[in-house]
Amino acid sequence: MTQMSMNEQVKWLLRGASECISEAWLTQKLEKNEPLVIKAGFDPTSTNLHLGHTVLLNKLKQFQMLGHHVMFLIGDFTAMIGDPSGRDVTRPQLTRDDVVENARTYTEQVFKVLDPKQTQVVFNSHWLDQLSAQDLIKLMSFHTVARMLEREDFTKRFSNQQPIAIHEFVYPILQGYDSLHMNADVELGGNDQKFNLLMGREIQKNHQKSQQVVIMMPLLEGTDGVKKMSKSYGNTIGITDEPSDMFGKVMSIPDSMIIRYFELLTSISNEELEALRHRVQVENPRDVKMELAVTLVSTFYDKDMAEKAKMGFIEQFSRKQIPDDIPEVILSAEQKALTLPLLLKSLGLVDSSSQAMRLIAQGGVKAGGDKVQPKQVIEYVPGLVLQVGKRKFIKLAD
Amino acid sequence: MTQMSMNEQVKWLLRGASECISEAWLTQKLEKNEPLVIKAGFDPTSTNLHLGHTVLLNKLKQFQMLGHHVMFLIGDFTAMIGDPSGRDVTRPQLTRDDVVENARTYTEQVFKVLDPKQTQVVFNSHWLDQLSAQDLIKLMSFHTVARMLEREDFTKRFSNQQPIAIHEFVYPILQGYDSLHMNADVELGGNDQKFNLLMGREIQKNHQKSQQVVIMMPLLEGTDGVKKMSKSYGNTIGITDEPSDMFGKVMSIPDSMIIRYFELLTSISNEELEALRHRVQVENPRDVKMELAVTLVSTFYDKDMAEKAKMGFIEQFSRKQIPDDIPEVILSAEQKALTLPLLLKSLGLVDSSSQAMRLIAQGGVKAGGDKVQPKQVIEYVPGLVLQVGKRKFIKLAD
Repeated sequence: MTQMSMNEQVKWLLRGASECISEAWLTQKLEKNEPLVIKAGFDPTSTNLHLGHTVLLNKLKQFQMLGHHVMFLIGDFTAMIGDPSGRDVTRPQLTRDDVVENARTYTEQVFKVLDPKQTQVVFNSHWLDQLSAQDLIKLMSFHTVARMLEREDFTKRFSNQQPIAIHEFVYPILQGYDSLHMNADVELGGNDQKFNLLMGREIQKNHQKSQQVVIMMPLLEGTDGVKKMSKSYGNTIGITDEPSDMFGKVMSIPDSMIIRYFELLTSISNEELEALRHRVQVENPRDVKMELAVTLVSTFYDKDMAEKAKMGFIEQFSRKQIPDDIPEVILSAEQKALTLPLLLKSLGLVDSSSQAMRLIAQGGVKAGGDKVQPKQVIEYVPGLVLQVGKRKFIKLAD
Repeated sequence: MTQMSMNEQVKWLLRGASECISEAWLTQKLEKNEPLVIKAGFDPTSTNLHLGHTVLLNKLKQFQMLGHHVMFLIGDFTAMIGDPSGRDVTRPQLTRDDVVENARTYTEQVFKVLDPKQTQVVFNSHWLDQLSAQDLIKLMSFHTVARMLEREDFTKRFSNQQPIAIHEFVYPILQGYDSLHMNADVELGGNDQKFNLLMGREIQKNHQKSQQVVIMMPLLEGTDGVKKMSKSYGNTIGITDEPSDMFGKVMSIPDSMIIRYFELLTSISNEELEALRHRVQVENPRDVKMELAVTLVSTFYDKDMAEKAKMGFIEQFSRKQIPDDIPEVILSAEQKALTLPLLLKSLGLVDSSSQAMRLIAQGGVKAGGDKVQPKQVIEYVPGLVLQVGKRKFIKLAD
C-alpha cells in the first residue's frame, strides 16, 4: 500500500469523504513521511455498533494501512457529566463503571476493523478531570456567543426559543481541547460534526500548535437505501449479527447502494472500485453484491465464515427458487382486504378461490418463501413474494 | 439601635435602597433573631475609594449596627483570570501579589466605615481555585443562553453584534456560587447588579438552600449633583482626601443633594433624617450641609478633625467674604475674548480699564478668591467669582 504515490494516497484517504479541510494541508502532513496522529472520538453511551458506525472506523483503518497512528478517543468525561439539569433524558449520566464496561464492549467490536497494534484507546477524563474551572474559563474566553450560535442546531433551537443550556457551549470547546491535548494531525467525524471539528483547529491555533486536518464522512444509508442507517428505522446491519444474517441483510440492499457500500465500508483500491462500478452496469449486480457481502462478513468474521454464509445464502435462495424478474403489483384497497385465496384469484394466479384453497392444502402456495398453511392470515407487506406452484410468482410493490 | 421594632429595622435597612427582593423575605430572616450573613462583593482592581463606593459600605455598617455579620468578598478569582483573550484592556490580569496588596489597601479604607470585629474579609479564590471544570460545567447546565442574554448589557451587545465571550456568562454564575458557598442571607449590590444578584438566589435554590435576600443600592451623584460619582467625571470625594479637602468638597454639592447624601452615606435614624429634611426647607441649607460635612469627615477621620476642618472652612469662607447672592452673568463670545481689565469694564464693575489696571496693581481685584496679579491671564471658567474691592462681586454662569 505504501507503494502509492502521494496523489493516490490523498485520493484514497478522501474517497467517500463529504468534506476535507483541506486537501492541501492533508498532503502537507502526509509529505512529512512520519506517522500522523489520527483522532476520532466516540460516545460510549451506545455499545451495539452497526455498519453505519464503521464508515469512520474504515477510514481510520485506511490511515493505519498507510502506517499512521490512530487515537481512538472515548468521550467519557462528558458522558459522566451527562445532563445534570435533567432536561435531556436521552443523555443519561453514566458512572465510571458503566463507561469502562461500555468501552470494553465497544473496543472489542472496534478491533474487528482497526489494527490493535496501531491503535491507542484513550479516555478524555484522563486530562479533563485535571482541568480546573479556571482553565476552562480561559478556554471559553476565546470564543464568542454569537459564533457558537452559528452552529446549525443551536441556531435552530435559539430561533425556536428552545432552551440551550450554557454548558452545551462547553462541549465543542472540550472536543477542541482534546485535539490540542492529543496533538491530533487529523480528526475524522461525521459531516454533522463540522463545527466541533473546526473547534480543534481554532484551539490548536490559539495555543500556537499545528492545526489538525478535518475530514468529514457522510452518514451511510440503511438497507432500504434511503434513510440513514439507524436502529430507529430498523434498517441496520449490526456488526455482531450472525454471518448468515449479515450476509442476507447485505444482499437485501438496493443495487444502487452496492458501490456506495464498497466505497464507504471497504478498503479496496480506487482502481478496484472503478472496476466494480463498471461491472455493476454490465453484469448481474447480484454477483457484485455477493462479493460485497463476502468482503464485509470477512471483515467482521473471516474468509471461511464469509464463504460459508455465501453458500448458505445461495442454497436458501435456490431452494426458494425465486426468479429475478418477478412481476410487481400494487394492491388496490379492495384487494388488500381480501383473504389470500380470493387475492390469488383476483391477481389471476388461480382460476378460482377454491382452486387456491386446494393448492394451499397441498402446500403449493408460498408467501415470502414459506409454505402457507390453510386459513393462515397473510400480511400483505410491500416486497412480499407470493408463489403459486413452481412458476407463478408475484411481488407486492413497495 | 436594637431597641428598634422589626418594622423600624426593615425601614431603616431599606432606606435609600432602589430595590429589595423582597421586603417580606428580609423581615422573615430578621425575625429569626440571629446574626445574618450579609454578603457584598468588591472588585480589587481599583483601590482608591470615593464616597460613591461607600453607599454599599454604609448599608453594610447598618446591618452590623443591628448585630449582623458582614462577609466582605474580594473577587480575586476572576481578577486573576482577567480577560485572557486580551480583548478588554480595561480588565487587566492581576497576579496573586497584586491582589493581596490591593486587598490590603482596600480593606484599610473599608474599615474606616465597617466594624472590623463584625467583618470577615474573604477571597473567592479560596473556593473557586478548588472548583474543577466538571463542577463548573454542572453549574452552567442549570442556566440557558437565552436567559443570560436577557441581562441588559448582554442584550445590548448581542443586538449590536459586539462580541460576548462565552466565559463572560460564567462570571454571574460564579457570583451566585459564591453566595451558595458563603451561605449568604442577604447580598447587597448596585442596582446595575440585579441579574448577578438574583443568580445567587437561583443557585442556592438549585442546591436546596435558603435563598438570599437581594438589596440594590443606587449610584451616588457626584459633587455636581447630576452625574454619578466617578473619577472620569472629576466629581468625586475620595475617602482618603485630607479632612479640609473633603469638607470643602462636601460643601460644594448642590443643596438639593444634602438629604440624599445623609440618606445614603450616614447611619442616622429615619426620624433624624426627616428632621433634617424639614430644616433644609426652613433654615439656611448651608448650616445643614455643614453638619453633613462634619458627619462625613468624622466617619473617615474623627470628630476633632472634622471640627477643625469646619473651622478652617468657615475662616477661609469669611476671609473670602463672598456673599450668598452674587449676581451671575453669561459672557458673550466677544466678552470671553477680552482681557480682564476690559471685561471688568464691560461688566460695569469699573469705570474704565485703566481704573481696573490700577485696582489690580493695588491687589484690589480677586478671581476665585485669589488676588489677581498685573497682566495675569484669567481663564473665564463657569462658576468663577470675580471680586472688585470689598463689595462688588459677579459670578460667571455655568
